[in-house]
Amino acid sequence: MIKVAIVGASGYTGVELIRILHAHPEVAVTCVTSEQSAGRPVSDVFPTLRGRCDLVLQNLEPVGIAEQADVVFTALPHKAAMAVVPTFLKMGKDVVDLSADYRLHDADVYGKWYEKHLTPELLPQAVYGIPELRRDTIREANLIANPGCYPTSVILGLAPLLKGKVIDPKSIIVDAKSGTSGAGRSAKVDNLYCEVNEGFKAYGVGGVHRHIPEIEQELALLAGTPLTISFTPHLVPMDRGILSTIYSVPTGKVRASELITLYETFYEGEPFVRVLPEGVLPSTAHVRGSNFCDIGIVVDERTGRIIVVSAIDNLVKGASGQAVQNMNLMCGLPETLGLDFLGIFP
Amino acid sequence: MIKVAIVGASGYTGVELIRILHAHPEVAVTCVTSEQSAGRPVSDVFPTLRGRCDLVLQNLEPVGIAEQADVVFTALPHKAAMAVVPTFLKMGKDVVDLSADYRLHDADVYGKWYEKHLTPELLPQAVYGIPELRRDTIREANLIANPGCYPTSVILGLAPLLKGKVIDPKSIIVDAKSGTSGAGRSAKVDNLYCEVNEGFKAYGVGGVHRHIPEIEQELALLAGTPLTISFTPHLVPMDRGILSTIYSVPTGKVRASELITLYETFYEGEPFVRVLPEGVLPSTAHVRGSNFCDIGIVVDERTGRIIVVSAIDNLVKGASGQAVQNMNLMCGLPETLGLDFLGIFP
Amino acid sequence: MIKVAIVGASGYTGVELIRILHAHPEVAVTCVTSEQSAGRPVSDVFPTLRGRCDLVLQNLEPVGIAEQADVVFTALPHKAAMAVVPTFLKMGKDVVDLSADYRLHDADVYGKWYEKHLTPELLPQAVYGIPELRRDTIREANLIANPGCYPTSVILGLAPLLKGKVIDPKSIIVDAKSGTSGAGRSAKVDNLYCEVNEGFKAYGVGGVHRHIPEIEQELALLAGTPLTISFTPHLVPMDRGILSTIYSVPTGKVRASELITLYETFYEGEPFVRVLPEGVLPSTAHVRGSNFCDIGIVVDERTGRIIVVSAIDNLVKGASGQAVQNMNLMCGLPETLGLDFLGIFP
Amino acid sequence: MIKVAIVGASGYTGVELIRILHAHPEVAVTCVTSEQSAGRPVSDVFPTLRGRCDLVLQNLEPVGIAEQADVVFTALPHKAAMAVVPTFLKMGKDVVDLSADYRLHDADVYGKWYEKHLTPELLPQAVYGIPELRRDTIREANLIANPGCYPTSVILGLAPLLKGKVIDPKSIIVDAKSGTSGAGRSAKVDNLYCEVNEGFKAYGVGGVHRHIPEIEQELALLAGTPLTISFTPHLVPMDRGILSTIYSVPTGKVRASELITLYETFYEGEPFVRVLPEGVLPSTAHVRGSNFCDIGIVVDERTGRIIVVSAIDNLVKGASGQAVQNMNLMCGLPETLGLDFLGIFP
Repeated sequence: MIKVAIVGASGYTGVELIRILHAHPEVAVTCVTSEQSAGRPVSDVFPTLRGRCDLVLQNLEPVGIAEQADVVFTALPHKAAMAVVPTFLKMGKDVVDLSADYRLHDADVYGKWYEKHLTPELLPQAVYGIPELRRDTIREANLIANPGCYPTSVILGLAPLLKGKVIDPKSIIVDAKSGTSGAGRSAKVDNLYCEVNEGFKAYGVGGVHRHIPEIEQELALLAGTPLTISFTPHLVPMDRGILSTIYSVPTGKVRASELITLYETFYEGEPFVRVLPEGVLPSTAHVRGSNFCDIGIVVDERTGRIIVVSAIDNLVKGASGQAVQNMNLMCGLPETLGLDFLGIFP
Repeated sequence: MIKVAIVGASGYTGVELIRILHAHPEVAVTCVTSEQSAGRPVSDVFPTLRGRCDLVLQNLEPVGIAEQADVVFTALPHKAAMAVVPTFLKMGKDVVDLSADYRLHDADVYGKWYEKHLTPELLPQAVYGIPELRRDTIREANLIANPGCYPTSVILGLAPLLKGKVIDPKSIIVDAKSGTSGAGRSAKVDNLYCEVNEGFKAYGVGGVHRHIPEIEQELALLAGTPLTISFTPHLVPMDRGILSTIYSVPTGKVRASELITLYETFYEGEPFVRVLPEGVLPSTAHVRGSNFCDIGIVVDERTGRIIVVSAIDNLVKGASGQAVQNMNLMCGLPETLGLDFLGIFP
Repeated sequence: MIKVAIVGASGYTGVELIRILHAHPEVAVTCVTSEQSAGRPVSDVFPTLRGRCDLVLQNLEPVGIAEQADVVFTALPHKAAMAVVPTFLKMGKDVVDLSADYRLHDADVYGKWYEKHLTPELLPQAVYGIPELRRDTIREANLIANPGCYPTSVILGLAPLLKGKVIDPKSIIVDAKSGTSGAGRSAKVDNLYCEVNEGFKAYGVGGVHRHIPEIEQELALLAGTPLTISFTPHLVPMDRGILSTIYSVPTGKVRASELITLYETFYEGEPFVRVLPEGVLPSTAHVRGSNFCDIGIVVDERTGRIIVVSAIDNLVKGASGQAVQNMNLMCGLPETLGLDFLGIFP
Repeated sequence: MIKVAIVGASGYTGVELIRILHAHPEVAVTCVTSEQSAGRPVSDVFPTLRGRCDLVLQNLEPVGIAEQADVVFTALPHKAAMAVVPTFLKMGKDVVDLSADYRLHDADVYGKWYEKHLTPELLPQAVYGIPELRRDTIREANLIANPGCYPTSVILGLAPLLKGKVIDPKSIIVDAKSGTSGAGRSAKVDNLYCEVNEGFKAYGVGGVHRHIPEIEQELALLAGTPLTISFTPHLVPMDRGILSTIYSVPTGKVRASELITLYETFYEGEPFVRVLPEGVLPSTAHVRGSNFCDIGIVVDERTGRIIVVSAIDNLVKGASGQAVQNMNLMCGLPETLGLDFLGIFP
C-alpha cells in the first residue's frame, strides 16, 4: 500500500482526493492537513466521509507530514505550496502539486502573473502533468505540476489541431465556462448561494486570468511556436464542470469527419479521452464525477472556423482525478487504477 | 384603455406578457388563447395569475379574437403565426408578432432557414422591432416583428461598433448562453429538470441556429455591408437570462475607455440600455425580471481583440418586455410605460 | 410623496424594499444606509438598481437619517434595531422594523430567546404587523414590528382554524421550508453556493428556532389560550420562498370543503391571501416575487389530521412586501398601493 | 462473474444500476432493455456510459433476456414488472424487482392502492428487501421486492423506536422531501426544468401516496401492531436525495442521548447506516451518490415530541444501491461489494 498525505484537505479538491483514493486499491490515506480546521476530524468538515475517513486534520508541519507518507498531494493556494514542496522532495517523497507553483517553466513568467518564485531551481524537474501528452516523463518524475482545470480542457481540446498544424495558432479564442466549485471554498459574499444561483456572468475578461500562461506554454509546445490566445472564463450556476468552446481558423480547407479521425488517432487508446462522433457534442453533465474529457468537433461551413467543445469535471480530470492519474504513473501502477468509475447522472 | 389579446398564452412568453401588462396603466388584457388548454382559466395553467387574471383560454379563431382587441400579441411558434397575422391586420389591428415569421426581409432567406413563407407580401410592412435602432419607424408600423432573444443581446451589443466602423465585420464570433426558459414549455425529455440541472452544454453548433439570419440581417444594416458571423448557443441551468460574449477585431488601435464613450454616446438617453463603466461586467442576475440590456466592453491588450459582454432577461428585453416597448411606441404611449420595474434579486 | 429611509440596505430585505418602493407611486426613497458599504452607491452593491437608484449608502447616524425621511424601515439584525429605533420614534418618524426586536410583547420572553431587551418601554406601542389580523391597529401605530418570514406563513395558515376553534391547539406541528435568502447575505461557508446547492437539510430542530415565540404569541391570541408548537425549519436549494406544512388534530369531524369555506370566509376580501380550491396545493414558485400568501387545506381521512400548506415569498410577504403593506396602512394609503404586482414565473 | 440483466434501463434507476455495477468486481452487465429506445446503444441515451457500457438496448422479451443473465433487475413501472417477473423466476433466475409489484404481502391492499394483482401466488415468496431488517431471509430469497425510496428512509428512521416500543405507533407523522429524479424520466410539463426549478411544493397530500401501504406494512411488523401514519411528500429542486422529518410521541420520558444509544445499538455493525452524534443532523448533500442512510435524533423538550431526520440518496440506498446490496446477499457475496464508495461533494 502506498501511504498518501493530502495537504490542504479542507477544500473541494482535498475532499475529492479523499473520495477517489478511498476506492483506490493500492493507496491508504494516512494524513490530512488543514490550517483552518486542524484538530477536527475531516469527516466533521465533510460529512460524506463519516465512518470511512475520520482522520483528524493536522497542522501543516512538512517534516512530520512527510514522515507519514510516500506520496504527498499539495492542494494549497499558490505560494503556500512552494513553501512546503521543497521539504517533501528533500525527504524523498513524490509530490503531486495541485497549485500553480510549478506549472510554468519560466520563473519570470510566473513572476509576472503571480509573484516572485521562491524556488525557481525546482522548476526544471517539475513535470506539467497531462498524461495524454507526456506519459513517459511523468513516470520518471518526482514532482508533478498538476494542470489547472481550464488548461486541462483547453490543452486536450486543441492538442491534435496544433500538433497536426491544422490551424493558425494566432486565431485561437477560448470561451470557457466553469461550475462554482472552481471558485473554491472560502467565505466570500460573491460565492454565496443567492449571489451565484440563477445568474451567469463572465469574469477576468481581457486576457488577465492566471490560467492563460500555462495554457499558452503548453499550446506553444504543441504548435512548435509561441502563441497568444484570447481566453474568457464564465461562472455557471452549478457545482461541477468545465466546458470550453474553442474557436480557431484552419490553415486550409477541412471537414469535420477528417478532424474527428485526426482526434481519434491522436487519442487512440487513451482511457480518459472520449472523442465524440460527428454531430454529437459534450455536456458537463455527462462527465460529472468522472475522469473523462469529452471532445466534440464541428466545422462551421459558413465561416470556415473550427469549433471544438471540450468538457471535463473540474474537480476530477481538472484536478484530483488527474492528480491520481499522475500518481499512478509515478508509482508504476496501472494508469486507470481507482479511476475507472462512471460519471453520476443525474 | 387599450384592449389587448395574447395569442398563445400558455407558453412562457405568454405568461410574461400577462405579468407585465397586468401592471400597465393603459392596457386591459381582454383575451388569451391556447390550443392545448382552451377552456381552462389561464390562472389554472399559471397559478401566479390566480385572482388577478382568471380569463378563460380561448381557441384560436382569429376573427373572434380580433373583435375583442385593439392590439394582438402573437406568441406562437413560427408558421402558426403567419397563418393568423394576416387576419388581424386585415381587421385593422396592430400586431406584435413574437415568432420569427416576419423578422427576415427576404422571403428566400426565410425559406432557407425555416420553410416556404406563406405571406411574403406582408414582409415589406413588417418592422424589426428594436426600439433603440428604429424608434420612429416602429411608431408608424402596424406589424412589428419582435426580435429573437439571442439577436436582441447581440445586436444591441454590437451596434455601436458596427455603426462606428470600429471593427472588421468579418471577425465577429458570438458565444451566447441562454437560460432554459428559452427552450420553451413543451414536454420533452431533453428539457426535464434532471436532464438540464447541473449540466452545461453547447447546441446548434456550426452555424445552424435559426437566429443567425436575423442577427446577420440587422448587423449588415448597421455595418453597411453583408457579413457572416460565427454563433454558438449554450444552455445554462437557470430559468432566465441570456449572456452573449462577443469577440471581434478592431480595424485600428482602440482603448476600452474610448469604446465605452462610444457606447455611452450611442445609447445616450436610452431608458433600457445600461453601458457599464470600465472594469465592470454584466451578469444575467442583474437584469433578471427587468427590461434592461447591460453591456460591458473590454479590450484584450494581448491579442488586440474587443470583447463585448451583453446581458438581458430573455423573457423580458428578449421577448415580452420588448414587445410591450414596441406596443407603447405603436400606440403613442410613453415608451417606458409599464416597463420601468427593477430586476428581482436574488 | 412620502420620504423613506431604508436602514440596512445592503441585505436582501433592503434591496427588496428598494425594488418594491421604486414602483410605489407615493414614495421616494431618500436615504439608504449600510455599515459595511457606506460611501458606495447602493447600485454598486446591487447592480439591478443601476440607473434607477444610485443613492450613496450612508453610515447609520440615526438623527441625520431621520431628518431625511418621514418613514424609516429598519432592516437590521436584532439588537442593532433597538439601538436606533427609539431615536426615530422620538423624532416623530413612523417606523417599520423588520428585525425581531419589537415582535414579542413580553420583554422576558425576548430575553429568553434573544438577550436582555434595551427598550422594553416601547413594546406596548409596537404593533405586530399582520394586516389580515389587525388592520385597524396598524393604521394607528407608529412602530410596526414586521413579522418574521416563517411566522407569517404559519400564522396566516392557522388563523381560521384557531379562531374557529376547529383544532386542538396542543396538536400543532409545523414543518417549514425556506429558500436560502432567508439565511441572509453574510459571508459564511455554510451559505456558499456549493454547500447549499443540491442539498436539503433540517436545522434548528427541537424547538430552538427564534421564530417560535412570536408564532406562539400570535397563535395563542387567536386561540384564546396559550399553546406550544413543534416547529422544524429546513433549507431548500432555491433563492426565495417559504412553504409551511402544518399538521393539526381537529376537535371534531371535519371535511376539507367545509374548512375551505371557513378559510374563504375568514379571508374574504383580503387582497393578498389566496385560498386554493379543494385538491389544489400551493407552490413557492407561484408566489415568487409577489406579496401573496397561498393556502391549501386537506383533510387526511385515514388519520383524521388536517394538513394546511401555506406558501409565501419570504422576501415579499415574509418581509419587505408586508413592510410596505404596513407602511401603506400607517400612512393612510390604499393597502395594495405599489404591491399589486404578479409573481414572476418561471 | 455473475451475469446481470437490467430490464428498463432507460430510466434513472436503470442508469444508476449500470453506474454501480460497472465498478462491481463480480458482476458483468450482459443485457439491458428499453421499450422506448430499443436498438440504440444505452450510452447513446446516457452518454456518461460511453466507452464503458455501450450495450444495445433490447426489446423486453423475457425468455430471451433470461437466457443472458443469472440475475435480473426489473426497473419497470408497476404492472409492467409483474408481467415479466414470473417468467424470470420460472427460468430459475434471481430477481430484484424495483417496482412496487411485490412489496405488499396482501394482494387486496395492492388492489386497493394500485390495481388487481396479476400474480398474487408469488407474493409469499417475495421478500421486502431491507437488509438491515431481514438480512438472512434475503439471503435465501429468489425474488426481492426492492423497497421504495420514501419507505427506505422512513423505515430505517423509525425501526429502533418501534422495535423498542419507545413511541405511540398512532402518533407518527412523516414529512418527506424528495429530489426530482424520484419523479422519473418521462416527458411531462410538470417535470420540466423551469417548472421545478426555484420552487418547492407538497404533492399527494392527505394520505394518498402509494408508498404509504408499504411503509405501514413494515412499521406494523416492527411495532407488532397495525398502525396508520400521516405522510406528506414534497418536491425539492435538486436532482437526488430524500430527507424525511419524522414526528412521534414517546410513551414515556426520553432523552436524545438515550435514543441515540438505542439507534447505535440497533444499527451496530451496519455498513450503510450512520447514526449521527447528538446535535448533528443529516443533509441529503452528505449522502449524495452513496449507499448511506444518515439518521439524526432530537427530542423537543418543549413539546415532548421526538423528531427523527433521515437522509438517503433516493437513487442509491433508495433504489439501485439497495438493489445491489440485496443482490450481494442473494448471491452469497460480501454485502458491501461494489457499494463502498463515498458520496460526491459538492
